[in-house]
Amino acid sequence: MIAEIIAIGSEMLTPFRQDTNSLYLTQGLNDLGVQVAFKTILGDTRAHLVAAVRIALERADIVVLSGGLGPTEDDLTRECVAEALGVELYRDPTTMAALYKRFAERKIPMSPNNEKQAEVIDGAVLLENKNGSAPGQYLDATVNGHRKIVVLLPGPPKELKALFDEAVKPKLQATLPKRFLARKQLKMAMIPESTVDARTAPIYTKFTDVDTTILAGRGEIQLHFVSAAATMETAQARVDAVASLVEEEMGDDIFSSNGESLEEIVLLMMEMQGQTLAVAESCTGGLIGERLTAVVNSSRSFAGGVIVYSNEQKTRLCGVPADVLEKHGAVSEEVARALAEGVRERCGSSLGLSVTGIAGPTGMDGADAGKPVGMVYIGLADDEDTQVKQYNISGDRDRVRLWASQYALELLRRRLM
Amino acid sequence: MIAEIIAIGSEMLTPFRQDTNSLYLTQGLNDLGVQVAFKTILGDTRAHLVAAVRIALERADIVVLSGGLGPTEDDLTRECVAEALGVELYRDPTTMAALYKRFAERKIPMSPNNEKQAEVIDGAVLLENKNGSAPGQYLDATVNGHRKIVVLLPGPPKELKALFDEAVKPKLQATLPKRFLARKQLKMAMIPESTVDARTAPIYTKFTDVDTTILAGRGEIQLHFVSAAATMETAQARVDAVASLVEEEMGDDIFSSNGESLEEIVLLMMEMQGQTLAVAESCTGGLIGERLTAVVNSSRSFAGGVIVYSNEQKTRLCGVPADVLEKHGAVSEEVARALAEGVRERCGSSLGLSVTGIAGPTGMDGADAGKPVGMVYIGLADDEDTQVKQYNISGDRDRVRLWASQYALELLRRRLM
Repeated sequence: MIAEIIAIGSEMLTPFRQDTNSLYLTQGLNDLGVQVAFKTILGDTRAHLVAAVRIALERADIVVLSGGLGPTEDDLTRECVAEALGVELYRDPTTMAALYKRFAERKIPMSPNNEKQAEVIDGAVLLENKNGSAPGQYLDATVNGHRKIVVLLPGPPKELKALFDEAVKPKLQATLPKRFLARKQLKMAMIPESTVDARTAPIYTKFTDVDTTILAGRGEIQLHFVSAAATMETAQARVDAVASLVEEEMGDDIFSSNGESLEEIVLLMMEMQGQTLAVAESCTGGLIGERLTAVVNSSRSFAGGVIVYSNEQKTRLCGVPADVLEKHGAVSEEVARALAEGVRERCGSSLGLSVTGIAGPTGMDGADAGKPVGMVYIGLADDEDTQVKQYNISGDRDRVRLWASQYALELLRRRLM
Repeated sequence: MIAEIIAIGSEMLTPFRQDTNSLYLTQGLNDLGVQVAFKTILGDTRAHLVAAVRIALERADIVVLSGGLGPTEDDLTRECVAEALGVELYRDPTTMAALYKRFAERKIPMSPNNEKQAEVIDGAVLLENKNGSAPGQYLDATVNGHRKIVVLLPGPPKELKALFDEAVKPKLQATLPKRFLARKQLKMAMIPESTVDARTAPIYTKFTDVDTTILAGRGEIQLHFVSAAATMETAQARVDAVASLVEEEMGDDIFSSNGESLEEIVLLMMEMQGQTLAVAESCTGGLIGERLTAVVNSSRSFAGGVIVYSNEQKTRLCGVPADVLEKHGAVSEEVARALAEGVRERCGSSLGLSVTGIAGPTGMDGADAGKPVGMVYIGLADDEDTQVKQYNISGDRDRVRLWASQYALELLRRRLM
């Protein structure tokens, strides 16, 4: 069984945007034992799209299309797939009613072009889209004597992922031969990829029935182990075997072995220990708070904090003495310490975490002049002690900010251990 | 003239890796007035590759292939392109000698499989690769009565970019009719995609020499206009003509016509007006601060603010009276107002912006019980007045938070207009 993924949208033919849905779809198809053999990316040109669907139906067993299900003139996927298959489209009254209801609930008048979204390919099953207005479609058909499965999914990643997981996967599972895939993932922060590889390659290369991948990015190293077998027990035992040896080797450097993010782990540890956290963010400007509050129930241990981008706010909101700022500069051990202690006291939390640094692209003035872009101080205060660490992060503004938030959370995790 | 880019390599069919060369190639082709109409990604299967090249020769004028030029068994691009074209391969003695010399210089014995890299498609021009061992190839041929240009480039980005810029671009430039590409982009927030399309389609569909694309995502609608012409003046005049009519139609709904983000626009407007902003973020938890401080020089008008995730912090950090919280709940007009006014006062800024809402996935207790997930209040205070708006945002936690930040920034922009 091989699959082709077709991504539709002219924005993905510009130098600025890329198809990313196919990575998620590939993962999901791989889980079911289906290899992706082709990806095609094309725009909103009717003749191109009809021809591309015909080609895919020739060379693949499963064709998954993403995009082009919206209400605009450019949204041609439904009609082009129908044309390629040589079948008709009809308007589904239930979907039409749901569309009108959806708009009415939001008190927005529905323009007639939205009715397009109720068009169904003859023989297809509609897949309800809880996150958007365009339903997906699933077709299990015989084309020129061969069985083909054709799936239409909306382009927005959130809608596509939910529809694929909730509607498409179960249908494919019921259809395809059973094959079980076990995965395990270990995550680390604050450690170079080459170090991880040097220490773990002697272990994982011995396990030839497990696929191991090292991924590095966004201040994090992930080790992925995957094994496929006729039973889940066999597949699971294989990945567990290699993972436990790697865990032994890397020890406390591993922050997660069940897929949790670094922020989820620190929130969990704080909750178990009855700790509460407040943050004072200068160069990260709210990023740490944003990452923590993205986690459900983060309020159980995250109190809040201050965004103290300017020196004035460091003094106003966090009580950092003006003469300390003037003497040592905002990017200094002293200010990181004062921010961590100040925010802890003002919020009445058990822990205070601060970040101050030079995100770039240019340096700073005054007492900070001459300090390099990427220099970051992180402070962590509890009721007994305040610890300050200094890091030099390479890269552009976004990277410095992201890594600073990563280092801050990792420092907190190590304190909580 | 339309192009197809074919990326060859099975790693790009996994969930972990993506073709990125095509973004670079697209930019380069666009610069020459060539539109990329198709991208195909496939692995090292001979039959698949031959068929894919034949399909590309049918539907595109220019076919650029990347990858599969190495010395291994999996490197099939040369032979598959020759087969698709129905021409022979020959071994180029000069390239062969260069290969042996390259290995000798590095004192590595050359295994015979490397000789593959000296294979040339009959009729092709070899493109010298200064950064690697496999040369590129450039073929200007007549296929079934149509002129086709086929380019083979190595996969490693450094080699591909150098070969494309130094060898391929000049050849294409000398061959292609001079064409210039003009682009323009309009951005809007807080308005449904279908409304934008309904109001602008009657305009942009009249301009058949301009390609218009509507992109929606992350709380924003973008309209992209592209036109190619024999002179830059003509191309520019076309996109300007459609853009100015659309600007007239959509008026103040358009926040940017030069590619700026919403946060860049509000920062620019504040700087020009000498205004400064402080934020009080409850459900967004730092997201607005993070977005603003991601912009270089944001400190000129963004002061900072407070992350007041819990009721306690709303009182401690922003002075919201406990009885107001108890009576009206944290998600209320009264609290949004008190937060905006409180943070403005505490930070000494000219503007105070607040967000309080229910991000989900579950509702809240106390005075907020019964208020629906997605209910958000946004407050905006200046020296004269405080405005509070209420929104109902559908979707999951991430979406509610992102849209809340988008609505807050858009509300601020409208005030600054």
